[in-house]
Amino acid sequence: MTAPESDHDIESVIRSGMTETPDFPSPGILFRDLSPLFADGDSLRAVAAALLADHESVDAVVGVEARGFVLGAAAAVEAGLGMLPVRKAGKLPGEVLAESYALEYGEATIEVRPGILAPGARVVIVDDVLATGGTLAATVRLMERAGWEVVGIAVVIELLGLGGRAALADLTSVPVTALIAL
Amino acid sequence: MTAPESDHDIESVIRSGMTETPDFPSPGILFRDLSPLFADGDSLRAVAAALLADHESVDAVVGVEARGFVLGAAAAVEAGLGMLPVRKAGKLPGEVLAESYALEYGEATIEVRPGILAPGARVVIVDDVLATGGTLAATVRLMERAGWEVVGIAVVIELLGLGGRAALADLTSVPVTALIAL
Repeated sequence: MTAPESDHDIESVIRSGMTETPDFPSPGILFRDLSPLFADGDSLRAVAAALLADHESVDAVVGVEARGFVLGAAAAVEAGLGMLPVRKAGKLPGEVLAESYALEYGEATIEVRPGILAPGARVVIVDDVLATGGTLAATVRLMERAGWEVVGIAVVIELLGLGGRAALADLTSVPVTALIAL
Repeated sequence: MTAPESDHDIESVIRSGMTETPDFPSPGILFRDLSPLFADGDSLRAVAAALLADHESVDAVVGVEARGFVLGAAAAVEAGLGMLPVRKAGKLPGEVLAESYALEYGEATIEVRPGILAPGARVVIVDDVLATGGTLAATVRLMERAGWEVVGIAVVIELLGLGGRAALADLTSVPVTALIAL
């Protein structure tokens, strides 16, 4: 019998699978990359399981392009669920729902195909980093417009200095889980 | 006891999880989208397992941004492996290896972080569609430069009219598996 995985364990897994690169992609940004974590089978599975640990009765995982696709698909397969892809504008064919959100300069748009899940489906949105929360807030709006219930947002890393949790709380009552806060 | 999954079964799973949209993203293109397949847990897991079914002694799955991230992570978790991300140019920090390849107009570049896997690691490259083979050939070159052995390329859909399999065979002896040919 093995002990249940503690918060400390998953934090160690994340810290040892993450690199920090200063001034990337622009000066003043400390960029966290999870390539080493993704490439390690035990770490990927541990994080995939931890992302959904707080949620029951979930019908599907939502993955946001592109790094959210890695974590979303991993979490989905680990839980025996499917992963609904939310894509950058122009990638999905046919009828789509679109939401735009502000970036530091300009704006970005994400899209989803409606009707892929059943009406009222309960979903958890998964991504790697909660920064300002703009992408995640737009994803919540997309899901609501599609008729699906967002029961949680789960990220690997929350960047405390960027106020994303407070920004999301102003826009939605969806609970936010972060496996590590930096 | 359940019977092993036949080729016919996986082909049915793919056909029922795929949509075809004419003239997207440009006139004359029939675009296949696997969002419905990804969003269904049983289908995602069946395809994830089938992609690696021909391979043993694999150390990691390689996923190519962006749809390859969904399938790569799904296949990796299903097999208890990690997924090495191959990204579009400019997304990965620090030292990267880069390979460019021709598109219909212009060219594209993909990158990987070296040293993430052990020297000589055996990898299978996973993607959704084999079209002209340009991205996959560039991915094979990246892996070889990084010191990893590509033991297979596995895609969900092979588009027979675009000659990708022959183009890949001219460049590499890596075996190519497609779950369905259209």
